[in-house]
Amino acid sequence: MDHSAAMSEANYAAILHGPNDVRIEKWPMPEINDNEVLIKMECVGVCGSDVKLWSTGKCGWDVLTEPIVIGHEGAGVVAKVGANVRDLHVGDRVAIEPTQPCRACTFCRTGRYNLCPEPRYCSSLGADGNLASFYKHLPDYCHKMPSNLSMEEGAAVQPLAIAIHACNRAGIRLGQRVAIFGSGPVGLLCAMAARAMGASKILMTDVTPKRLEVAKALAADHTLLVENSFSDQQTADKIEELLGGRPDVSIDACAFPSATRAAMLVTATGGVVLIVGIGGASVEVPLSNTMLREVDIRGSYRIANTYPAAISAVSSGAIDLKRFITHHVPLADTQRALQLAQSGEGMKVIVYVQK
Amino acid sequence: MDHSAAMSEANYAAILHGPNDVRIEKWPMPEINDNEVLIKMECVGVCGSDVKLWSTGKCGWDVLTEPIVIGHEGAGVVAKVGANVRDLHVGDRVAIEPTQPCRACTFCRTGRYNLCPEPRYCSSLGADGNLASFYKHLPDYCHKMPSNLSMEEGAAVQPLAIAIHACNRAGIRLGQRVAIFGSGPVGLLCAMAARAMGASKILMTDVTPKRLEVAKALAADHTLLVENSFSDQQTADKIEELLGGRPDVSIDACAFPSATRAAMLVTATGGVVLIVGIGGASVEVPLSNTMLREVDIRGSYRIANTYPAAISAVSSGAIDLKRFITHHVPLADTQRALQLAQSGEGMKVIVYVQK
Amino acid sequence: MDHSAAMSEANYAAILHGPNDVRIEKWPMPEINDNEVLIKMECVGVCGSDVKLWSTGKCGWDVLTEPIVIGHEGAGVVAKVGANVRDLHVGDRVAIEPTQPCRACTFCRTGRYNLCPEPRYCSSLGADGNLASFYKHLPDYCHKMPSNLSMEEGAAVQPLAIAIHACNRAGIRLGQRVAIFGSGPVGLLCAMAARAMGASKILMTDVTPKRLEVAKALAADHTLLVENSFSDQQTADKIEELLGGRPDVSIDACAFPSATRAAMLVTATGGVVLIVGIGGASVEVPLSNTMLREVDIRGSYRIANTYPAAISAVSSGAIDLKRFITHHVPLADTQRALQLAQSGEGMKVIVYVQK
Amino acid sequence: MDHSAAMSEANYAAILHGPNDVRIEKWPMPEINDNEVLIKMECVGVCGSDVKLWSTGKCGWDVLTEPIVIGHEGAGVVAKVGANVRDLHVGDRVAIEPTQPCRACTFCRTGRYNLCPEPRYCSSLGADGNLASFYKHLPDYCHKMPSNLSMEEGAAVQPLAIAIHACNRAGIRLGQRVAIFGSGPVGLLCAMAARAMGASKILMTDVTPKRLEVAKALAADHTLLVENSFSDQQTADKIEELLGGRPDVSIDACAFPSATRAAMLVTATGGVVLIVGIGGASVEVPLSNTMLREVDIRGSYRIANTYPAAISAVSSGAIDLKRFITHHVPLADTQRALQLAQSGEGMKVIVYVQK
Repeated sequence: MDHSAAMSEANYAAILHGPNDVRIEKWPMPEINDNEVLIKMECVGVCGSDVKLWSTGKCGWDVLTEPIVIGHEGAGVVAKVGANVRDLHVGDRVAIEPTQPCRACTFCRTGRYNLCPEPRYCSSLGADGNLASFYKHLPDYCHKMPSNLSMEEGAAVQPLAIAIHACNRAGIRLGQRVAIFGSGPVGLLCAMAARAMGASKILMTDVTPKRLEVAKALAADHTLLVENSFSDQQTADKIEELLGGRPDVSIDACAFPSATRAAMLVTATGGVVLIVGIGGASVEVPLSNTMLREVDIRGSYRIANTYPAAISAVSSGAIDLKRFITHHVPLADTQRALQLAQSGEGMKVIVYVQK
Repeated sequence: MDHSAAMSEANYAAILHGPNDVRIEKWPMPEINDNEVLIKMECVGVCGSDVKLWSTGKCGWDVLTEPIVIGHEGAGVVAKVGANVRDLHVGDRVAIEPTQPCRACTFCRTGRYNLCPEPRYCSSLGADGNLASFYKHLPDYCHKMPSNLSMEEGAAVQPLAIAIHACNRAGIRLGQRVAIFGSGPVGLLCAMAARAMGASKILMTDVTPKRLEVAKALAADHTLLVENSFSDQQTADKIEELLGGRPDVSIDACAFPSATRAAMLVTATGGVVLIVGIGGASVEVPLSNTMLREVDIRGSYRIANTYPAAISAVSSGAIDLKRFITHHVPLADTQRALQLAQSGEGMKVIVYVQK
Repeated sequence: MDHSAAMSEANYAAILHGPNDVRIEKWPMPEINDNEVLIKMECVGVCGSDVKLWSTGKCGWDVLTEPIVIGHEGAGVVAKVGANVRDLHVGDRVAIEPTQPCRACTFCRTGRYNLCPEPRYCSSLGADGNLASFYKHLPDYCHKMPSNLSMEEGAAVQPLAIAIHACNRAGIRLGQRVAIFGSGPVGLLCAMAARAMGASKILMTDVTPKRLEVAKALAADHTLLVENSFSDQQTADKIEELLGGRPDVSIDACAFPSATRAAMLVTATGGVVLIVGIGGASVEVPLSNTMLREVDIRGSYRIANTYPAAISAVSSGAIDLKRFITHHVPLADTQRALQLAQSGEGMKVIVYVQK
Repeated sequence: MDHSAAMSEANYAAILHGPNDVRIEKWPMPEINDNEVLIKMECVGVCGSDVKLWSTGKCGWDVLTEPIVIGHEGAGVVAKVGANVRDLHVGDRVAIEPTQPCRACTFCRTGRYNLCPEPRYCSSLGADGNLASFYKHLPDYCHKMPSNLSMEEGAAVQPLAIAIHACNRAGIRLGQRVAIFGSGPVGLLCAMAARAMGASKILMTDVTPKRLEVAKALAADHTLLVENSFSDQQTADKIEELLGGRPDVSIDACAFPSATRAAMLVTATGGVVLIVGIGGASVEVPLSNTMLREVDIRGSYRIANTYPAAISAVSSGAIDLKRFITHHVPLADTQRALQLAQSGEGMKVIVYVQK
C-alpha cells in the first residue's frame, strides 16, 4: 500500500451539522507542519459522548455552534510526516490519543495533561475529530501499535486508556474487591482493567438485565440488577452480601445520584470511591459517613499517560478487546453506527473509515 | 516527688452524670496489669466533643447511658509500671494518645489504627477518659515528652496530632496555598501544622470576627468573614482573590454544608478538599464539578501515628502551642472550663488536675 | 475429623540438632493461652533458608545454638481456640503467616510489622517453626482459606506473600516491562505476582538452563542464560534487546553482585531496582549512574500485609501455585525434602505433616 | 526603565574558551521566535559545576569542545516577548529555570522533565548559559517573581529548587530527623528546605570546620566534623548519638564513598538515603544491610516542578536566602567569582551582569 499517495486522495469526514444531522462529506485535506504527522484513518469507535453530541447538539461543556468532524477513538496508518518528526515513519500503524495539550501549563508540566485547560481535544471545543479519511496530529500522541493489535483494537484502546486512568486514580491493587456501578462500555472496560491490575472479585451493577449478561460474560464475578425500589442502603447491602464483604474500591461509571450514594455507603472503611462520568451539577450524598471512615472520593477525567499501558495490556493478552467490540460498519453508515451505540444494543461500534 | 506514692493517694475524677451535670468525685483507683502503666495526670485540655457530650449527653455515635469520666487531651507523669513494661519508668513525663486499638484488625495491622472498629477511645463508647487524678494506659500510647515541653503543651499535643493527621491526609507540601474553613481550635491547629509543613499562604474563614482576629494573630495570612448573604460561589471567589489564586488544598474544619461546597468550588484543579469534623448525615454538593477537575475529597478521622511528629514540632519550635492555650483552671472548676470552651471565649482551656 | 481430639494426640516435629542433623522426634504439645489458637498442621513447604540452616547451622543473623523446630511455610486446621478468640473456630482451614510481631513498636504501629525488631519469626531467633504435628499461633496471623485452596497451596502462600510484598515495594503497574534476576522459587513467584499485577513483558535470568525452562513454562516471556564471561554491561544489553526496551522494574532475586550491577545498569531511567534476598556484606556497584537517572533502589524484607492478597489471587485463579509445587513427601522424609530443595531439582517441596 | 530598548544594546557574555580561560566578550544578541522571550539578565549565581567546567574543561557528561557561555542560576527582566507569548510581558521580573526540555518524551509527559534526554540545559551539551547581558528562553520556564524577592535571591532560587527536588524525592515530613552529608551550597540549601518542610532535627557533616560554622549558623541543629580516621560505622555512631536517634532521612550531598556508606549504615530502618551530586563510576557499599532494613536509596537529578515552591517559600519567609548569598561581583570580575566559589571562602557568589 502506498501511503504516500495520501496527498492525492480526497478526504471524506463525518460532519455533524446539528442535532441528529450527521453527513459524510468532503472535507479539506489537513495540511501538516514540520512537527505534525498525517494519519490515514482506518477504524474509529463510537463513544457515548459522540452519541450525546449527535442527538442533542451538546455534551458536557461543549455546545455545537458550527459543523464539526466527530470521532475521537481512532487508529490508522501514518501517511506523511513533518520535517522534524523522528520517531514515526510513513506506514507506521498508530493508535491516536485524541488530545493536543498545551505542554506549558502547570498540569502539562507535572504529568497531568488531562487537566490542561486548553487541550484541543478531538471533536470538542473547536477541535476536529478523526472520523475522517485523513487526520493530522502530534506525533507523540500517536502510539505505535504492535503487529498483533488489529486496527479496531487500536481504536478501542482509547476508551480502555480512560478506564485504566480511572483504575490508576482508584489505586486498584492485587487481591482487592471492586464494585462497578454501571455496565456500559466504560464500566466494562474498568472491570477489565481492574482485573488486569489484580482485582480478585468484581461486581457490576446496572438497571438493564441484558448489560449484566454481557458484564458477566466478559468481566464480572457477580452482577446486581438495581431496581427502582431499592434504597441506597439496600443496594449497598446486596453488594456486600454478593461480594462476601465490602468492596475496597467502588467505581461509579454511571454518575446516577443513587449509584454515587450507594458507592459511598458500601465502600470499605479506608477505601476509595472513584467517579468517572459526568453527573448533574448538584447531588445529595452521605458525605459525613464517608469522610469519618476515611473513604476517599476521587474523580477521573480523560487520559493521562495510559495509552502505552493499554496497548501493552492488549498486546500481552491481559485484556481482550475483541469480545468488547460488537459491531463493524462502513463510513457511509455512520448514522447507523450512532443509532446502534445509542440503542445500547452493542457494546462498542467501530466505523471502518476506508470502506 | 515520690510518684510511687501514687497508690496510697485517692483518685478524683470529672464524672459526667448527664446533660450539664459534671461532678468532681472520688473514683476507683485504676489497677494496672503487667502490660499497662499508671499515670498521675497533670493537665487535660477541654475539647469540643467534651462540651458536646456534657451539654447534650450525646456526641457522634456516643450516647451517655451511665456516668463516665470525661477528658482525652491529657499529659502526666508515670506513677507505676507493669512488670512487662520496658520503655517507660516511674517519673517519665508523658503525653497520652487517648486510644487503645485492638492491634489485630486489618486497620491496626496496616498502620491505620484510627479506623480500628474497637479502639477503646478515651471518654467514648464505654472507655473512661483521663480527666482524673490517675489514669491507666498502654505504654506505647504514652509518648515521652522532651524536657522543654510543659505539661499543658503535652495536653495540647492531642488536638495538634489530629490536625497533623488531617494535614498528612491532605498531603500539604512546601509552597502551597491553603484555605481553612472554620477558625476554631481544630482549624487553627491545622493552619499551624500546614505552616510547619511548608504552606506559603494560608487563608482562614469564620463567621465570628473575634475568631478571625486570633487566626490572623496566630496562623493566617488572610482571613475571610463569611456572611450569611454569601453564595457558595461568592465565598469561593473572595477566597481566590485574597489568596491570589485558588488554594491547592482546602481544609473544611467546620463541616457546615456551605463551607464544604465552597471548598469544593474553590480548590484548584488537581487539588484536595480535606474534611475534618462531623457534619450532617446528608449534604448537597457540586460533586461533578469537583470530580471532573480531579479534586480529591478526603476525610480525616482522629489520629494515626502523628504524636511523635507533633511532639517534635513543638519541641523544635516549629509549632508554638503556648499562644494557643488561653485558659488554665483547677480540677474543681471543670464545669467552668466546659463553659469557657462552650462560649468560644478562649481557644484552648486546660484543666490542672492536681490543683 | 474430630479436631478437638488434638489434645490427646502426640506432637511430632522436625528438629534440627546441628548441621545436616534433622530428626523427627516427639516434641511437647504447645499449650495455648486465651489469645492463641492451636493448629493441627497439614502441609509445610521447604524454603531455601531451611536448607541453609540445615546444611550450615547458620542463616542470616541466626546461628543454631540449641535444637529447634524448623519450617515456616505452613497450613493446617484449627484444633483449639483460646477463650478470647472470636474470629477463628475449630475446624477452620488456615494459612499461617509465620510471625508474631510485638504490635507496639513504631514499625508495627505504622503497618510495617515486617521490620519489627522482635518479631518471633518461625524457626528463627529462638522461635519454633511449624514443621510439627501441632503448632500454636496468634489468631490474626492465621488466615482463613477459601475452600478452593488446597492445603499445599496454603503452605505455598507464604513464599507468594513474600513475592507480592517485593512486587508491592517495587511498585509494579499495568503494562510494565520487568526483568527478574534469578529463577529460583522467589524469582519465579515474583514473576507470577508481577504478571498478576499487570506486567506485560517479563524476562528472567539464571545460570542454570533447567531453571530457565521452568521459568519459561510458568511465568517468563523471555529468558536469559547468564554466562560467566558476560560483563555486567553485556548482560544489561542482552536484556534490553530481548525485552525490546529497558525494564521499568528489575527484581534481583539472587543477590549475586553481578546481578545487582546489571540490574542497576539496565533499569529504565526513573525506574526501580528491587532487591529481595540476602547478599554479601559489601558490594561494588555503579551507584552514580543509577542515582543520576533517578532509578530507585529498594529492598524487600519478608511479609507485610500481603497474605490476604496472596490468598485472593490464588483463589481467583490469577496466580496458579499448582505447577509451582513439584514434590510432596511425608514428615518422616523431611531430610529427603531438604535434599530435594537443596539440589534445585524441584521448585517447591511440600512436607505432608500428618502422613 | 525602558526594557524594549534591549534590542539596541550590545550583548556581553562570560565565555569559557578552555580550562581556566573565561573571558567577557561581545556575543550575538539572541533572536527570539514567536514562542520565546528575551531576558535582560540581572544576577547569575556561580555553581560548583561552573567551577568544575571552568577549571577542568569537563563536568559530568559534558566536555568543552568549543567556546560556551557559562551560567545557569539566573534572574532578570523580560525585555521582549514573542508573538504567541501570553503570560509574560516586558518588564516582568523572572527567575529562570535553566532548561528547555523536549516536552514530548515519556519523561516530559509524565512530569519528570528533569530526566528528559534532550533538555537543552543551560551551559551544557551545546546550550548556552545565561551569564550574559541578554538571554532567550521559553516563557513557561521563566517564573515571575513577587516584588519582595531581590534579583540575587531570584538567581539563588535555582540551587534552592534543586534542593527542594532532592527533599521531595527524599519524602521529608514533619518531625523527622535528617542527616546531611556535606555542608557546601547544596547541602546547606537541602537543610533549609528540609527545615521548611518540617524536619525537626538536622545534623550536617563536613571535613572543613569553617563550613560547619556556617551550617550551624544557618540551618543545622548539630554538626559533625568527619575526620579521616573515622570508620564508616564510627561516623554513623556519632551521628546517631548527636541526633538522639537514627535519622529518618539521610541526604548525601557530597558523594564521597565514605559518606554514602555512613549514610546507608546510619539511616533508620524503613528510611531513605537520598543522593544528590555526582560520585565516582563505582563505589563499594553495605547494600545488604540497607536492603534488609528496607532503607530506600534514591537519587535526585536537577529540578522538576520545584521553582514555584522555591519562590513561594522565599517570598513567605520560610526560607531565607539572604544569608546564603555571601559575595556580589560585577560581570567584569567573573573570573574572580569563579575563584571565590572554588576556594570555598563564600557560600554563594552572585555576578551582577549589568554592572
